[in-house]
Amino acid sequence: MDLLTTNNVWMMICTALVFFMHLGFAFLEIGLTRQKNTINILFKNIFIITVGLLLYCIVGFNLMYPGEFNGFLGFAGFGLDAPLNDAGTLDMAYNEGYTYWTDFLFQGMFAATAATIVSGAVAERMKIGPFMIFTVIYVGLIYPIAGSWKWGGGFLQTLETPFYDFAGSTLVHSVGGWAALVAVCLLGARIGKLKDGKPQAIPGHNIPLATAGVFILWLGWFGFNGGSVLSADPELTSITLVTTCLAASAGGIAATLVSFIRFKNMDLTMFLNGILGGLVGITAGADQMSPTDAVLIGAIAGAIIVFAVYLIDRLKLDDPVGAIAVHLVCGIWGTLAVGIFGNLASGAQFVSQLIGVASYAAICITSSFLIIFIIKKTVGIRVSEKEELEGLDAHEHGMDAYPDFRLNEH
Amino acid sequence: MDLLTTNNVWMMICTALVFFMHLGFAFLEIGLTRQKNTINILFKNIFIITVGLLLYCIVGFNLMYPGEFNGFLGFAGFGLDAPLNDAGTLDMAYNEGYTYWTDFLFQGMFAATAATIVSGAVAERMKIGPFMIFTVIYVGLIYPIAGSWKWGGGFLQTLETPFYDFAGSTLVHSVGGWAALVAVCLLGARIGKLKDGKPQAIPGHNIPLATAGVFILWLGWFGFNGGSVLSADPELTSITLVTTCLAASAGGIAATLVSFIRFKNMDLTMFLNGILGGLVGITAGADQMSPTDAVLIGAIAGAIIVFAVYLIDRLKLDDPVGAIAVHLVCGIWGTLAVGIFGNLASGAQFVSQLIGVASYAAICITSSFLIIFIIKKTVGIRVSEKEELEGLDAHEHGMDAYPDFRLNEH
Amino acid sequence: MDLLTTNNVWMMICTALVFFMHLGFAFLEIGLTRQKNTINILFKNIFIITVGLLLYCIVGFNLMYPGEFNGFLGFAGFGLDAPLNDAGTLDMAYNEGYTYWTDFLFQGMFAATAATIVSGAVAERMKIGPFMIFTVIYVGLIYPIAGSWKWGGGFLQTLETPFYDFAGSTLVHSVGGWAALVAVCLLGARIGKLKDGKPQAIPGHNIPLATAGVFILWLGWFGFNGGSVLSADPELTSITLVTTCLAASAGGIAATLVSFIRFKNMDLTMFLNGILGGLVGITAGADQMSPTDAVLIGAIAGAIIVFAVYLIDRLKLDDPVGAIAVHLVCGIWGTLAVGIFGNLASGAQFVSQLIGVASYAAICITSSFLIIFIIKKTVGIRVSEKEELEGLDAHEHGMDAYPDFRLNEH
Repeated sequence: MDLLTTNNVWMMICTALVFFMHLGFAFLEIGLTRQKNTINILFKNIFIITVGLLLYCIVGFNLMYPGEFNGFLGFAGFGLDAPLNDAGTLDMAYNEGYTYWTDFLFQGMFAATAATIVSGAVAERMKIGPFMIFTVIYVGLIYPIAGSWKWGGGFLQTLETPFYDFAGSTLVHSVGGWAALVAVCLLGARIGKLKDGKPQAIPGHNIPLATAGVFILWLGWFGFNGGSVLSADPELTSITLVTTCLAASAGGIAATLVSFIRFKNMDLTMFLNGILGGLVGITAGADQMSPTDAVLIGAIAGAIIVFAVYLIDRLKLDDPVGAIAVHLVCGIWGTLAVGIFGNLASGAQFVSQLIGVASYAAICITSSFLIIFIIKKTVGIRVSEKEELEGLDAHEHGMDAYPDFRLNEH
Repeated sequence: MDLLTTNNVWMMICTALVFFMHLGFAFLEIGLTRQKNTINILFKNIFIITVGLLLYCIVGFNLMYPGEFNGFLGFAGFGLDAPLNDAGTLDMAYNEGYTYWTDFLFQGMFAATAATIVSGAVAERMKIGPFMIFTVIYVGLIYPIAGSWKWGGGFLQTLETPFYDFAGSTLVHSVGGWAALVAVCLLGARIGKLKDGKPQAIPGHNIPLATAGVFILWLGWFGFNGGSVLSADPELTSITLVTTCLAASAGGIAATLVSFIRFKNMDLTMFLNGILGGLVGITAGADQMSPTDAVLIGAIAGAIIVFAVYLIDRLKLDDPVGAIAVHLVCGIWGTLAVGIFGNLASGAQFVSQLIGVASYAAICITSSFLIIFIIKKTVGIRVSEKEELEGLDAHEHGMDAYPDFRLNEH
Repeated sequence: MDLLTTNNVWMMICTALVFFMHLGFAFLEIGLTRQKNTINILFKNIFIITVGLLLYCIVGFNLMYPGEFNGFLGFAGFGLDAPLNDAGTLDMAYNEGYTYWTDFLFQGMFAATAATIVSGAVAERMKIGPFMIFTVIYVGLIYPIAGSWKWGGGFLQTLETPFYDFAGSTLVHSVGGWAALVAVCLLGARIGKLKDGKPQAIPGHNIPLATAGVFILWLGWFGFNGGSVLSADPELTSITLVTTCLAASAGGIAATLVSFIRFKNMDLTMFLNGILGGLVGITAGADQMSPTDAVLIGAIAGAIIVFAVYLIDRLKLDDPVGAIAVHLVCGIWGTLAVGIFGNLASGAQFVSQLIGVASYAAICITSSFLIIFIIKKTVGIRVSEKEELEGLDAHEHGMDAYPDFRLNEH
């Protein structure tokens, strides 16, 4: 009972930290985009966390953890149903690491993250209503169903060599990343992004807040990965925090170095994306790696970021915040890295990791394409040219982000 | 001893989270007000937390928890007086949930909150000196005396059906809210707020920081409500976090929906206030509600916010940040909801809740009126017209909030 | 085992809080400096934390805690080397307060802080490359060697009356502060700082973020001091948090009062620096003081700040963010205060504290002078006049901090 109390305290703190990541995402996304779309992005981000928690309460939790099921789709019923003991109070034998309520809330905080990733990629041009519809379906149904395949004990968990994804390089980050990729393809680039077919840089409006966003996300990752131990086990939680922080550091330094060698500049945005890439990369195996493994995985993720951002640009995919490079590409890298580095490394594991990546690619691409394509063909997904040029804040929300901002005379 | 250690860890973390709420309040208040008064609001907020802790150390803690007393007013003496055991070290039998020091610090963090609520309501027109005087009296004396009535074991605790206020919908939020209402009445509206008798919108200057403020406040509420369990009891703490987060979510969604239906816009500010309303609303009974109760209480709070903001505007009360709607109106709602929803729901409880609300209305309106009225009639409470038009930052502090801010040529 | 789990949870949370301080430093530094150098400061701050962790992993941890050594310099080898038990898993007997991994990460977060202090002092005129070289040497070698003298069990720990520095008024803050002083001397003042030999105020560009930085630093100090107990011991951790918060409060109030009496203004920046001064001041003895001691130490630190800032200005030392006053002067004050106030107060202790201060002055001044002087004479440390006038962001990074920021028409 004492140990359960301690474990549960840790899990509740991790829950709070993962919640706080949503401010990190919001800051990162508004910082890297133009001022005229700031209210829209903030609105989307608070919509995602609020509706995400409600949906996870109504259907998501029981879709993701349906108990015994066919391995592909199960549902344990609407709403929450706390297990009671004979005395009618909460059954504390539910798990030694947390109570039923903590379990729900921790997992609920994860659920919203997938949609947040999409939010950044579609920024500055997607209609708010269709984005909300997409969010409701993707967070409410697709994320938990996909999650059940592994964390809910589904077919990827019951492979001979089970697919391994400790904290969600694939289950969270790639799930968001695939949908981001599909959405970006269906939306097209922002006006002004391509000039004579060549991608142009469209600078954001608040790099200090973007940087703060990365600090907050890194802080949140203490809970994202640390809580994925699902208890306060001293050895596992502490090695997880070490690998997480080292991968973040290595990712940032590697991205900066590669960027410096290639482009001869000290690029802050690349540094930030490198940190995030390192964090996403280590997430699949954060509890299975040595510090050295973590540094390598993070550094490779950081290097990947530089090339991925460049490549996505060359493919004329317009991802304003680099979400696809960070969450999808590094998510895949991190997932495969579990087969290459650390305690689980083996050929069989690598194959299982490939199967996992492919399975999530299949469900996420298919479902997000269907959802967004249907919306596109019915109500439309993109704001008008006039709205895009004048900003979504004015047209979708009738508000400015800094309405009373003034300059001093210098 | 092990369990005390765990409990105390949880309580210390909650203390840190409640401390951090003061940044949330500061961000929310400056974000929703004009740039020219930003330094003033920041100054007030750091004054409140620093002077609040010192006063709570000198008199507050022993006013609020006087031990045995007449139920209305007691005082256990100046300063802190840690209980020692025979060996002369801290008596760990003080409480199974926390040490004496943690108790003081956790409660001290709460004390400052009441004045912070007032800070927002009187923004942009109240003189700094008088605000500081008010803060000292209200945080140092009124808040702890009022608090003793319930949390200190006073007469509201000893009612046949005791008044219930888990974490302070009334003891904290309404205590601040009543004073905010009184202060707004005595101060009058800002210049430009009323045009031909009709209330005008006065936009703030930094909505991203206001949004960040709400995220930080929500995070802080993990500690505000979670710590009010006064131990790390796994069942109570975790259900409390679940009800807190669901009420916040439901409040935000409900306020947005009602606002959308009524005004046909996607109003970010209303979304933010809805979240805060849901949080304030659940606070009185967060440990007594089911998830469904929490969603209902939050959703009703969110809907109330929209109408309350409208009504307060119609009454020509000028509350720049919506503090009265959020903290007073939803504080009352949440307090009464304990008699309607959840484990304690009963007619008797509802009556006790009404008695509690009325008692706090009486002490808070009376005391805040006396303090502010006397200041008004002596040194005055409102800055001059010139100072108000040019901003409190220049006149009260001789500083600008963004002195070196410049624009790039686009 | 249960107690180790609880202790380790506390230490991991404290680690996360100390990590988050780096956002606090970044916000404080950019807020108090001009917009044209914002990217540069953000870049330096994320470089410090990322490279700091990697270096601490490679050499720092084993330089700082070399096991048995001569008391001046020892090295236990490159990389991390987790102690294993016979079963090949992590030896949990390593310490009752934390695992090996937590130990590394907590101490690693401290290491970066020293360089961050320097970052603020050299802002707006130091070349990025030389700053990075300095950081690598100072964080990677000097900080851990200096740290070994006390925390690693070196000669200051083995004095007859051991030097006492609980959480690093000297080992962290003065170590950064001395280097800041040396760097400022070698760099010279910013263009425009001195006019006819008189120091001019150069206003910063974002005081709200500077204020947020102080709130975040204060929050981080819950972990900085609270974690320095090196376990979750209920009595020690909770009194430490109380003394920390009271000293911060007293420091802020005292600095404001002194500043008000002397300069007749309500100076927000002085309030903020007073809080930080109080925090730095209490850090050396936070676990040894009564609440009254803490208030006195903090208040004196706050008063010192006002005079120190004034004096440093008069000495024509250009420290844009007040780092020397806060971290060096208050660091020395706090260290000496351990000999004057609290449980350890004695003449012998005061002498030991003086020895400690002098020892760190010797190593830090010498080493930082050598590093920076050599860099100055080779590649140079200061940007060109043109670069300084146009800003480091444009020249060192090719970026703006707020590239798309626009004003509404009012």
